Amino acid sequence: MPSQKEISISAIADSVGGRATKNPEILITGVSQPETAKPGDIVFISKKKFLPRLEGCEASAVLVDCEYDIEIPQIVTPNPSLAFAQLVNEFHPLKKPKPGVSPKAEIGENVQIGKDVSISAFAYIGDHTVVEDGAVVMSNVSVGEYCRIGSDSVLHPNVTLYPETEIGAHVTLHAGVVIGADGFGYTLDKTGRHYKINQIGKVVIEDHVEIGANTCVDRAGLGMTVIKQGTKIDNLVQIAHNCEIGENSILVAQSGLAGSCTLGRYTVIAGQSGLVDHITLGDHVTVAAKTGVAKSFPAGSTISGFPATDASVWRKYVAIFPKLPDLIRKIRNLESRLNNVENNKNPE
Amino acid sequence: MPSQKEISISAIADSVGGRATKNPEILITGVSQPETAKPGDIVFISKKKFLPRLEGCEASAVLVDCEYDIEIPQIVTPNPSLAFAQLVNEFHPLKKPKPGVSPKAEIGENVQIGKDVSISAFAYIGDHTVVEDGAVVMSNVSVGEYCRIGSDSVLHPNVTLYPETEIGAHVTLHAGVVIGADGFGYTLDKTGRHYKINQIGKVVIEDHVEIGANTCVDRAGLGMTVIKQGTKIDNLVQIAHNCEIGENSILVAQSGLAGSCTLGRYTVIAGQSGLVDHITLGDHVTVAAKTGVAKSFPAGSTISGFPATDASVWRKYVAIFPKLPDLIRKIRNLESRLNNVENNKNPE
Amino acid sequence: MPSQKEISISAIADSVGGRATKNPEILITGVSQPETAKPGDIVFISKKKFLPRLEGCEASAVLVDCEYDIEIPQIVTPNPSLAFAQLVNEFHPLKKPKPGVSPKAEIGENVQIGKDVSISAFAYIGDHTVVEDGAVVMSNVSVGEYCRIGSDSVLHPNVTLYPETEIGAHVTLHAGVVIGADGFGYTLDKTGRHYKINQIGKVVIEDHVEIGANTCVDRAGLGMTVIKQGTKIDNLVQIAHNCEIGENSILVAQSGLAGSCTLGRYTVIAGQSGLVDHITLGDHVTVAAKTGVAKSFPAGSTISGFPATDASVWRKYVAIFPKLPDLIRKIRNLESRLNNVENNKNPE
Repeated sequence: MPSQKEISISAIADSVGGRATKNPEILITGVSQPETAKPGDIVFISKKKFLPRLEGCEASAVLVDCEYDIEIPQIVTPNPSLAFAQLVNEFHPLKKPKPGVSPKAEIGENVQIGKDVSISAFAYIGDHTVVEDGAVVMSNVSVGEYCRIGSDSVLHPNVTLYPETEIGAHVTLHAGVVIGADGFGYTLDKTGRHYKINQIGKVVIEDHVEIGANTCVDRAGLGMTVIKQGTKIDNLVQIAHNCEIGENSILVAQSGLAGSCTLGRYTVIAGQSGLVDHITLGDHVTVAAKTGVAKSFPAGSTISGFPATDASVWRKYVAIFPKLPDLIRKIRNLESRLNNVENNKNPE
Repeated sequence: MPSQKEISISAIADSVGGRATKNPEILITGVSQPETAKPGDIVFISKKKFLPRLEGCEASAVLVDCEYDIEIPQIVTPNPSLAFAQLVNEFHPLKKPKPGVSPKAEIGENVQIGKDVSISAFAYIGDHTVVEDGAVVMSNVSVGEYCRIGSDSVLHPNVTLYPETEIGAHVTLHAGVVIGADGFGYTLDKTGRHYKINQIGKVVIEDHVEIGANTCVDRAGLGMTVIKQGTKIDNLVQIAHNCEIGENSILVAQSGLAGSCTLGRYTVIAGQSGLVDHITLGDHVTVAAKTGVAKSFPAGSTISGFPATDASVWRKYVAIFPKLPDLIRKIRNLESRLNNVENNKNPE
Repeated sequence: MPSQKEISISAIADSVGGRATKNPEILITGVSQPETAKPGDIVFISKKKFLPRLEGCEASAVLVDCEYDIEIPQIVTPNPSLAFAQLVNEFHPLKKPKPGVSPKAEIGENVQIGKDVSISAFAYIGDHTVVEDGAVVMSNVSVGEYCRIGSDSVLHPNVTLYPETEIGAHVTLHAGVVIGADGFGYTLDKTGRHYKINQIGKVVIEDHVEIGANTCVDRAGLGMTVIKQGTKIDNLVQIAHNCEIGENSILVAQSGLAGSCTLGRYTVIAGQSGLVDHITLGDHVTVAAKTGVAKSFPAGSTISGFPATDASVWRKYVAIFPKLPDLIRKIRNLESRLNNVENNKNPE
């Protein structure tokens, strides 16, 4: 995609710690995919097997992991994927709205607003809330009282923060995110009805967290629900009360954690997976898609299936499922042959 | 349900291409279900097995697929279900709010607003956005800059469109829908943290698409996420970046597509199903409920299970699951009998 | 957590129908968990096995089910969990915003607003809607025309009610909830396109229901979708058109009901479970997490798996899955031994 910028191949090679194979003076004006690239664009392939994607490619340069025998000028760099991501962000930096508080926003009492903050029309900021420098609160966002929105964090439209929610710095909350709604806590009363336990804890989102559209993070019953630094959460994810998610974890769309789960650092929870309550997953645990986790797993585990088990074990027995009808037939056949042996002592 | 209209049985028969068995002059005033119908109502049954639903039914007419031996006046038509749907829409057309832009809406700079557009209070329209003739933007909707909302499309309350989103004509977006949020794209940087890849593509929703409440469609990393003409998507569905969904497809509630999936025309993705990334499904593929699709399938496939396989195969082995404990017993029994045979050469 | 209140141990014992073991005069100022309690706090343990949580605990009192040999003053009560919940709510009652209608709200024509109602900025109330005494409508809520919001009900920010929705008394709708969006109803027309069936029914939510963030309850095609008294629904749940959910049921996060399901009283639908359409579950049915329910079950059933079956049966065959590879080996072994027997009539 074309942008306003022009950067020479040699400057790009320098910035990504790579080496240009030729034409260092050519100016690059945008990033693209091999199939849709136009002259001026730079593209990337992460490994040799994607070379066919460059056939007929009109790009003016390609980021590669080693030099190939191709016409297009190459920039050789150990991590073409990261280098390309850096170029995407260089050519297309995130846009921030102009600072300023819209006269059509509603700002409560005792609200502290830092420098260069942008608050759009129909944003509602509750009493005693702090909005730190450079934060962006878009239209139709509702922020309860006694919240904190850290510096340079961005709240997209229609986000809701319940009272006392703490959002760190450089956090992005996508549209429709709800942080701090009541955890799902009831106990039966003497008449057999569900008696609500007021959820008096809160939510703390640390720095550099990104949370996808319409995802929900519930406040703690007592204490805190915590999402630690650098963790990235996709759309439509459910984080129940009193969960704690370690640093730099990844939770993919439509996954869900029941109450009081504790995840280590660098955990990966793939799409549509779920954890029952009070599960502990160690650092670097990977949970495959659609997994149902019903017990805790130590650091480094890769798990799959329902109920979740070691992924390699799961793959083995899943591979057997389609063979089950044949298995039944084999057992029947064995039974009948054994009957013969037992009865005749001579099967022929 | 009663409406303001009155239509004679003969006029209804004409309009649905059917034949009235008697009382063509009777006036119908509403549509209903057999169990709750009042005199004046019309109901339908799609096939013979539903005849018992008409016992004691007070309706003044019934749409049927062939003439039955019943008292109620019948309208015989090849597709009673479609005929009834047409009557529902005739008696109860969708209401549109009065045209006009609320003084309590926020309209950005260089916004183009067509004829007969309705924009409600607390709707926010970003700069350079185009709202075409007859479009409806309800309260608390947020539309980013450089969007296009096609003619006669309806955005229900609390919808969010991120910048550059393109919505075709006659599209309905239900409340809480988020279109164009960032795709979930990261790569590890040198310090082992997740480095965000700015998502610089967009979303294109073609004509006659309907999208259910709180569903999310992410913008492309590069290029476009596309929902083609006539496709209907239910509530709480996740469509990740760079997906392309073919014409007239159906995605049922809580299903999810990971990045770069390509679906053909007339695909059906049932509830709570999921596709991993880069899956291709051909035209008319049907994915059963709760399926986990981990590889591509050709046109016409009907698939089920996790990992997904041909539905008929899956049904067979699932039917065996409850027999597994018995299978174990049989194998133990075989082993012990075979031991006997081997040891005694004479089991008696 | 500290609050503004002080209540003596003896007064607490009286209020929860318990017995203080010592120090009845000590003043309690807050509720906490054993691990984080400070002097002045009260904590609870529900049974003996949690006694270790009290080691080193600084709380000034503990609610217990029977008297233990510990230093902390105890209040013995048959249901410590309920007693603690009552104390949480006593020390931390839900806060209600001050009554009043914000001048920045948009109130339609013929809206009836009761006593002590609170309506915040950017709330939109459609024509002919009734808001009963003590109801709270928070910021950025959109309410359609001809709705009813019962007394003392609370609508958190960014909730959407479609027209004609009826909300009972003492109902809580968390942020982003959508009630009354169109059910997912289409039929194929003669050209093979999906023809929308206008959804002309409505939604009725009875008293004392609580619905979690971003959950969707669709309006009926014809008739009503009904959530009966005292039912509690978690976040991101999907309730399709024409469902009826009995009293005091529990639906956990990310579960989903397809159209026309009927649930009895005290049903429990655990997280990420799904029901296909037209399922009936009797009273007190419990559906385990991630279950896929494809047929109806009578009162009292506990079901699990996909397709759902009796939970005890499911547990048995799931326990066999990891043994399947071994089973295959055993069958091969049996076959080869039986071959020997058959061929040699003498396996040695």
